[in-house]
Amino acid sequence: MSNKIYLTPGPSQLFYTFEEHFKKALFLDIPSLSHRSKDFVSILKHTTDCLRGLLEIPENYDIFFLNSANEAWDRIIQNLVINSSHHFANGAFSKKFCDFALMYGIRASVNKVEDGKPFSNFDIPEEAELIGLTKNETSMGFTLPENEIESLRQQNPDKLIALDIVSATPSIPINLQNVDTAYFSVQKAFGMPPGLGIWICNQKCQEQAAKKSDLVSTGSYRSLDNLKKLADKDQTPETPNMLSIYLLGKIAEDMLGVGKQKIINDTVYKSTLLYQTIDDHPKLKSFVTDPSYQSKTTIVAHADNPSKFISHFREKGLIIGSGYGAHKEHHIRIANFPAHSKETIEMVCDILPSIE
Amino acid sequence: MSNKIYLTPGPSQLFYTFEEHFKKALFLDIPSLSHRSKDFVSILKHTTDCLRGLLEIPENYDIFFLNSANEAWDRIIQNLVINSSHHFANGAFSKKFCDFALMYGIRASVNKVEDGKPFSNFDIPEEAELIGLTKNETSMGFTLPENEIESLRQQNPDKLIALDIVSATPSIPINLQNVDTAYFSVQKAFGMPPGLGIWICNQKCQEQAAKKSDLVSTGSYRSLDNLKKLADKDQTPETPNMLSIYLLGKIAEDMLGVGKQKIINDTVYKSTLLYQTIDDHPKLKSFVTDPSYQSKTTIVAHADNPSKFISHFREKGLIIGSGYGAHKEHHIRIANFPAHSKETIEMVCDILPSIE
Repeated sequence: MSNKIYLTPGPSQLFYTFEEHFKKALFLDIPSLSHRSKDFVSILKHTTDCLRGLLEIPENYDIFFLNSANEAWDRIIQNLVINSSHHFANGAFSKKFCDFALMYGIRASVNKVEDGKPFSNFDIPEEAELIGLTKNETSMGFTLPENEIESLRQQNPDKLIALDIVSATPSIPINLQNVDTAYFSVQKAFGMPPGLGIWICNQKCQEQAAKKSDLVSTGSYRSLDNLKKLADKDQTPETPNMLSIYLLGKIAEDMLGVGKQKIINDTVYKSTLLYQTIDDHPKLKSFVTDPSYQSKTTIVAHADNPSKFISHFREKGLIIGSGYGAHKEHHIRIANFPAHSKETIEMVCDILPSIE
Repeated sequence: MSNKIYLTPGPSQLFYTFEEHFKKALFLDIPSLSHRSKDFVSILKHTTDCLRGLLEIPENYDIFFLNSANEAWDRIIQNLVINSSHHFANGAFSKKFCDFALMYGIRASVNKVEDGKPFSNFDIPEEAELIGLTKNETSMGFTLPENEIESLRQQNPDKLIALDIVSATPSIPINLQNVDTAYFSVQKAFGMPPGLGIWICNQKCQEQAAKKSDLVSTGSYRSLDNLKKLADKDQTPETPNMLSIYLLGKIAEDMLGVGKQKIINDTVYKSTLLYQTIDDHPKLKSFVTDPSYQSKTTIVAHADNPSKFISHFREKGLIIGSGYGAHKEHHIRIANFPAHSKETIEMVCDILPSIE
């Protein structure tokens, strides 16, 4: 790797052990194995076992391998929504899930508030079969607190709840029992190259997909039914991104070795330091102001002149993110993932005050 | 890499230069770049340029990045078939495309002949909007000759023709002008890890997708329309498998350096040697007997005791393939891709006669 450090919110810095595992993968000929071989079946099982441990995925939830969080939106709509869904949107990514539903001709309603602002109304239309939530709105640095998810669960026991955990997991605690399906891509907090998405579903999802497939097609090789059939044998319908499945298992194993709680604690320490340093800076201001809604993994700050900060860091080999979409001209974004050591974040916080 | 050589029909042996390019990719931080950055846009452009040169993809055909050939079937059905398709099937993979269409509720008809046998009837139902062909039936070692594709084109100027070029391209000459869409995955003749699929489409495909999307949904992020919108800017709708896109460009560039004609000539030399050696062996027999239908990239032989051959080669570090599906107990399959040098194939042919 180069001597740059990527603090961009994803694709981001590779996890410390990535290169070493990659070399081992080549030595073991992982990319050349048959995806139906015993060797690969046990690799896939190792990856799901480690993910289950690290993310505390309940036993009755299945783990499927897709290619991106975009594909998870696509497959959720194809399989789990017959007529109507409802989405909470306060940024680009939470909004996009709703757009995907509309593209599929679903009656998707949206509770849209200003970018990065909390929701005050949690009413759900009677007809909505699925509620779309985003744990960490990567574009805005907003996090949806666990108590709001829990309360939505209690008030909507019969609807499906889908939780976007991109750039949140495994850095912050998430109770998956409160949702029916969740998904993430690996190029954020797992410190891997993009090209792999993970989709987690419970039995209620299977039932809804069965109901939908009685009425219309739910797709082909990656219909939920087919994914489940193959996952039960620790396989995938198609030849998957085998190398990334292997590497994700190895990195999840390493993270389990570090300890889930230590990753969570370190995330809190590093994010606290970042928010304090930002708020002490005369030219910066945390975009999300209420600490209970501040993302611990994607720190977004308002800046009058973001490019000054971005280029100052770049000169020192530290790549920080620009604002997302329309916020490009007045935001900076700094990722705080497990691949970003305390020393790196301390260095960022040492440099920040010197930028005027 | 280990000192084994994989002659399996895919996943298969990695191309010679893969590891070197991978190291360079890490040095250049390819996995951490923003997929919207100028750097990545020019990487994607380089890959499409090299593919266009190597596969002689006409200027008016677009190149899209998917994740597998399975996904290409899925997207072709979603975007290009409104009511009806017709499929030529003489093996597991050509059959599977038809199955995908049926799963989507399409009226798919099939011209099904015995595994590995040529087609005699080329009639197409009037209602079929798309004809599904397979250049190289990887499961059976059957190749569809160019003159049969050309004649289908001439007799069906208004229908769409989809050609599966998995495990065929870039090892054998294919005239893409005779088809409207073609697709392949990279873990076969490109000698890469699985997880990337390439989908090639002409303007007629765009028109059919536009017609279909007026009637029903053609998907979301990877609807043909959306893929095209982003490809026109050398981008992808989602964060793609960036590393594989980079590596495919580098390997295609290397292959252009070797020369397309030399790759084709070497493929002919190596396949001729393999078929001769197989037919000289008292316990082996080419499964496809007519040379005009014999695959040059996936050599399939009938054997009374395939495991004897497979284990003998395995002891010498050469991994050959077993028969596909129901043919497991009486076939062996030997891949002949650019990653398999003349020396490797000569070694295989030196060893074969000694197995009794």
